[in-house]
Amino acid sequence: MEEVVVLRYGHRIVRDYRVTTHCGLVARAFGAKKIIIQGAEDKSILNGISRIKDKWGGNFDVEFVDSWRKVVKNYQKRGYLAVHTTMYGEPLQKKIDGFRGKKILLILGSQKVEKGVYELADANISVTTQPHSEIAALAVFLHEYFQGKELDLNFEGAKVKIIPEKKGKTVLKS
Amino acid sequence: MEEVVVLRYGHRIVRDYRVTTHCGLVARAFGAKKIIIQGAEDKSILNGISRIKDKWGGNFDVEFVDSWRKVVKNYQKRGYLAVHTTMYGEPLQKKIDGFRGKKILLILGSQKVEKGVYELADANISVTTQPHSEIAALAVFLHEYFQGKELDLNFEGAKVKIIPEKKGKTVLKS
Repeated sequence: MEEVVVLRYGHRIVRDYRVTTHCGLVARAFGAKKIIIQGAEDKSILNGISRIKDKWGGNFDVEFVDSWRKVVKNYQKRGYLAVHTTMYGEPLQKKIDGFRGKKILLILGSQKVEKGVYELADANISVTTQPHSEIAALAVFLHEYFQGKELDLNFEGAKVKIIPEKKGKTVLKS
Repeated sequence: MEEVVVLRYGHRIVRDYRVTTHCGLVARAFGAKKIIIQGAEDKSILNGISRIKDKWGGNFDVEFVDSWRKVVKNYQKRGYLAVHTTMYGEPLQKKIDGFRGKKILLILGSQKVEKGVYELADANISVTTQPHSEIAALAVFLHEYFQGKELDLNFEGAKVKIIPEKKGKTVLKS
C-alpha cells in the first residue's frame, strides 16, 4: 500500500519554525498523510498548517511527540519501513524501487542526528551526498516515490483551487 | 546548452536567512551554476555558502543585486529562458520537456511577487498548485531538468567526500 508519514526529528521552537513549516507544507502538497514533529509542541506550526488545510483542503495531520524512538518502533510494528534521509546514506536513485508501494515512515534529520536513528532505521538514504536541505530531500523523495502523480493531486473539501495559467493568477472559490 | 542560474526574489535580511541559505545550498547541490539574490547583501549567507563550497568543492557562485528586472532582462538578452516558479503557473510536468537543454534563469518567488515578474518571465511554472516551499519547487525543478544526473555530481576541489553507507557516516578527507 502506498503511504508516507513524515517524522521531523529535532524541531526547535522558534528557531526551526519556518523550516519545519516548509516540511509540513511540502509533505501535505506532495501527498504524505501526516507529519509527526519530534520536539516541543509549537502552536504556531499547528495553526499555520491548519489554516492551509482549511483553505486548500485534504486530510493532512500534524502531531507532536517527545520520543522519535517510540514513533519509529510503533510504525515498524505496523509494517512501515523507516527510511531516514541523510547525506551519508545509500543513494536514493539506487534504493527507491524497493520503497515504492510500501508504507514508509520518512525520517527527516536535522543538523545533529543521534546514532540511534541510523541504527534503528530500515534504510539510510541520501538525496545527493552534499549538504543542502531536508525540505529538498523530502520533496525529491516524495516525487520519486509517487513517480510524479503527486504533482496533480486533488484535495477534497478545498475552498480555493488554482486554475493554472500562463501569466497571472486564477483562483476558483467554492 | 544545459545550465541553470537561480534568482531568489525578495530576500529579507535576518528573516529569510535560513530559507535563502537552503535555496543556495540546494541550487549548488543539484547542479545550478549560481544563485543571484535580490535584496540587501547578507554577509551571513555569503559566508555560510562559501564555507560549504570551500569544504565540499565545486564552482558555485553567490551574487546580490538590487533589481530583479535588470537581471531578468540581462539574462534574456544572453539567451536564457526566464522561468518563474509559482503555484499559479502552468504545470511543470507539462512544460519541462521544452526547458531541458536550454539555459534557464529560474526565478524563485516569495510570498508576494510583483505582477511584473509574471509578465516579464518567459514561463510561469507550478510545482503542484498547492502552497508549499520555494526550496521544494527548486529541488524538483532541477531534478526534472537534469533528469536525475544531478543526484550523482562530482564537485571538483572538494576537501571531503562522503562514501555512501547503509548505517553510519564515512567521510574521505583529501
